[in-house]
Amino acid sequence: MKKVGVAILGLGVVGGGTYQILTEHREFYQKTQNVDIVVENVLELRKERALSLGVQENKIASNIQEICSNPDVDIVIEVMGGVEPAKSFVLAALNAGKSVVTSNKELFCKYSYELEKAARKNNCGLFFEASCVGGVPVIRALLDNLQGNKILSMMGIINGTTNYILTKMTNEGSSYEDVLKEAQKLGYAEANPTADVEGYDAAYKLSILSSLAFHTKIPFSKIHREGITGITADDINYGKQLGYVLKLLAIGKNTDEGIEVRVHPTYVKASHPLATVNDSYNAVYITGDSVEDVMLYGRGAGALPTGSAIVGDVIYCATHPNFRYSTFKNTEEADPNTKFIDNFKSAYYIRLSAHDKAGVLAKVSSIFSRHNISVAQMIQEEDVTADGRVPLIFITHMTKEKSVNKAVEDINLSDVADVVSVIRVVS
Amino acid sequence: MKKVGVAILGLGVVGGGTYQILTEHREFYQKTQNVDIVVENVLELRKERALSLGVQENKIASNIQEICSNPDVDIVIEVMGGVEPAKSFVLAALNAGKSVVTSNKELFCKYSYELEKAARKNNCGLFFEASCVGGVPVIRALLDNLQGNKILSMMGIINGTTNYILTKMTNEGSSYEDVLKEAQKLGYAEANPTADVEGYDAAYKLSILSSLAFHTKIPFSKIHREGITGITADDINYGKQLGYVLKLLAIGKNTDEGIEVRVHPTYVKASHPLATVNDSYNAVYITGDSVEDVMLYGRGAGALPTGSAIVGDVIYCATHPNFRYSTFKNTEEADPNTKFIDNFKSAYYIRLSAHDKAGVLAKVSSIFSRHNISVAQMIQEEDVTADGRVPLIFITHMTKEKSVNKAVEDINLSDVADVVSVIRVVS
Repeated sequence: MKKVGVAILGLGVVGGGTYQILTEHREFYQKTQNVDIVVENVLELRKERALSLGVQENKIASNIQEICSNPDVDIVIEVMGGVEPAKSFVLAALNAGKSVVTSNKELFCKYSYELEKAARKNNCGLFFEASCVGGVPVIRALLDNLQGNKILSMMGIINGTTNYILTKMTNEGSSYEDVLKEAQKLGYAEANPTADVEGYDAAYKLSILSSLAFHTKIPFSKIHREGITGITADDINYGKQLGYVLKLLAIGKNTDEGIEVRVHPTYVKASHPLATVNDSYNAVYITGDSVEDVMLYGRGAGALPTGSAIVGDVIYCATHPNFRYSTFKNTEEADPNTKFIDNFKSAYYIRLSAHDKAGVLAKVSSIFSRHNISVAQMIQEEDVTADGRVPLIFITHMTKEKSVNKAVEDINLSDVADVVSVIRVVS
Repeated sequence: MKKVGVAILGLGVVGGGTYQILTEHREFYQKTQNVDIVVENVLELRKERALSLGVQENKIASNIQEICSNPDVDIVIEVMGGVEPAKSFVLAALNAGKSVVTSNKELFCKYSYELEKAARKNNCGLFFEASCVGGVPVIRALLDNLQGNKILSMMGIINGTTNYILTKMTNEGSSYEDVLKEAQKLGYAEANPTADVEGYDAAYKLSILSSLAFHTKIPFSKIHREGITGITADDINYGKQLGYVLKLLAIGKNTDEGIEVRVHPTYVKASHPLATVNDSYNAVYITGDSVEDVMLYGRGAGALPTGSAIVGDVIYCATHPNFRYSTFKNTEEADPNTKFIDNFKSAYYIRLSAHDKAGVLAKVSSIFSRHNISVAQMIQEEDVTADGRVPLIFITHMTKEKSVNKAVEDINLSDVADVVSVIRVVS
């Protein structure tokens, strides 16, 4: 039976889960996969953490060189997160002839070009299923199942923290601030939640997934990114009244005009399969020209679900002697021939705080019409708020982003209403 | 650029879709996959069908030998369906050194052992993603993503025809017979619908999927199979009242006691992700010990979605020089060490037609209690039907199949009620 040695860099949540899976399933993999996978080294500065997980003291390496020069290590698992020192460690491992399995979305998003170059040069495997959407098998689906399709679009709920927060806000009518605090207490959100709630995490993943789907490098910098910090309970409730559920969506589209990639809060029709993806569950909804619609759903984070993706890659790497590298143009920057669309089309939810006087609707309607925006649905509240305002909510038909921006400007300049929120809508 | 020649056996619905995808995307695959895939031959007796799809006359082979001896053919795509002549053709292709991609669930379910033996002997690829659930990437997910898990259970809506019929019955309150006729008119059901409506198709797929998931041969003969022909609009409505949606589920479980595999109509809680899988959409809900819950959703049938799975396998085969065969014990019969459970546990919906007299509920309850069946929910209708009967519906807690069978016998022997239907329930 083939013996394969692995080293785990970082025994945090995911590293700990990976260690647990590998050690508890060792005999199971011998029996079912005909391979003996042994954890030969871990790199973890908190020695007690390693020992408490059951790692033998002589397996704890004190630096990356020790692992690179250990001939028993075939595969290095990088689960440290962040760019440095993860990047240097991964490059060192590849240059030492070790294959690499990583869960590091920021690293892979920003430096896939450099990492892949090193992997090719050294004829090593480079696997990253765990970098996107935890245990949901989306990367291999794009690489090995759907590659016969032109992928037309993908829409994903690919950040667990924000989906947990939005689900709570939806179910309980609570404010963003209250739910965030609760999520932090429960460990679902970090003390500094910026990467999640501002959409960075989702944008890293979208960069990776859309590069695979559209076969060209989609850099992080090309992704239009908005977070959920401005979302109010009111917006969620008005959306509900109109038949929508609010989600932080990562959207990638490949049309004849070009590519659009964006992360932002989005109303999803309540009957859409993505609308029922709740709590820390994630899902990616992919449309291809042959397969039509496919949705992949599961745990997008967590020690064992993400560990499952890592171990899947480890077993694949251990049992498949030939490696295939990216099927997209893995360039350092975007290919100059790739056209990106800023002025994309969408339907919009526009909430106004209108003065309680006659002619408001006529004025607003004329502004919309001037910018070729046509209205699909409207709610005008009867009750006047304490400051003498009336909430007025519109859902538009498909229109261009820039037209909406201009209409918003004009409404704010008018004397009849202020724009409170603008949220995109998919049906 | 590597050139790969393929031959398509059978230009029916799926064969036609596959031909269309391959020819329309040829340049796209050259650009994105660095491989030139050329349809070198088709085997189709209806010459006009081949010509109408755009096949050049000189590419139409008149028998399998012509294809086997064509040195330009590297991969044979078998999309004929049924056991013979598909089996002889696939074996001939493998023995001629051609790799095979098949969508044939009946063939693969019944003869995977023989086919794989021939593939190994000739060092050829044998791919079958399209045999189960059309464009939904479930086979590769089990083989290459979730293989780090002990799969605990899978529940699938894996037959499009029956899901279409049950969805229509649910939405419109129509009878099975009426919806079946409509489905046949629309081409969603075959003139002879037995394979679909009696659960054979789902059972073939469950045999394949559970063999992969549980790493041991699960023969068709071990699968408990019931179809949907006995389902009435009343059952669907009572289920609705109790918060359930009726689906034909394929269920596989791997517990400490053994393996249970079954296909039968099942009530699914309305809040379960499988409950919203409607019309001809399919989905497989898999639970692993590390990944927790994963659901894969999409089109389970159709020319292009199934063609997408076939072409995915063709590209994989063309770009991965090494083949890996089944990761289950691919024996001819079930491994004698594999234990199968007949007397499985489930919750049950039991509908009675009760006499309209006092003491019925007491009598039925005492029968349940005698067989250790505890009741979770009950509906007793007020209205008496024309024949002086009262519908009485129970949902039980988890109980053993055999206990329910005995209780049903006892109720039918009693003078208070007849059992109209017994349907299993998952929550």
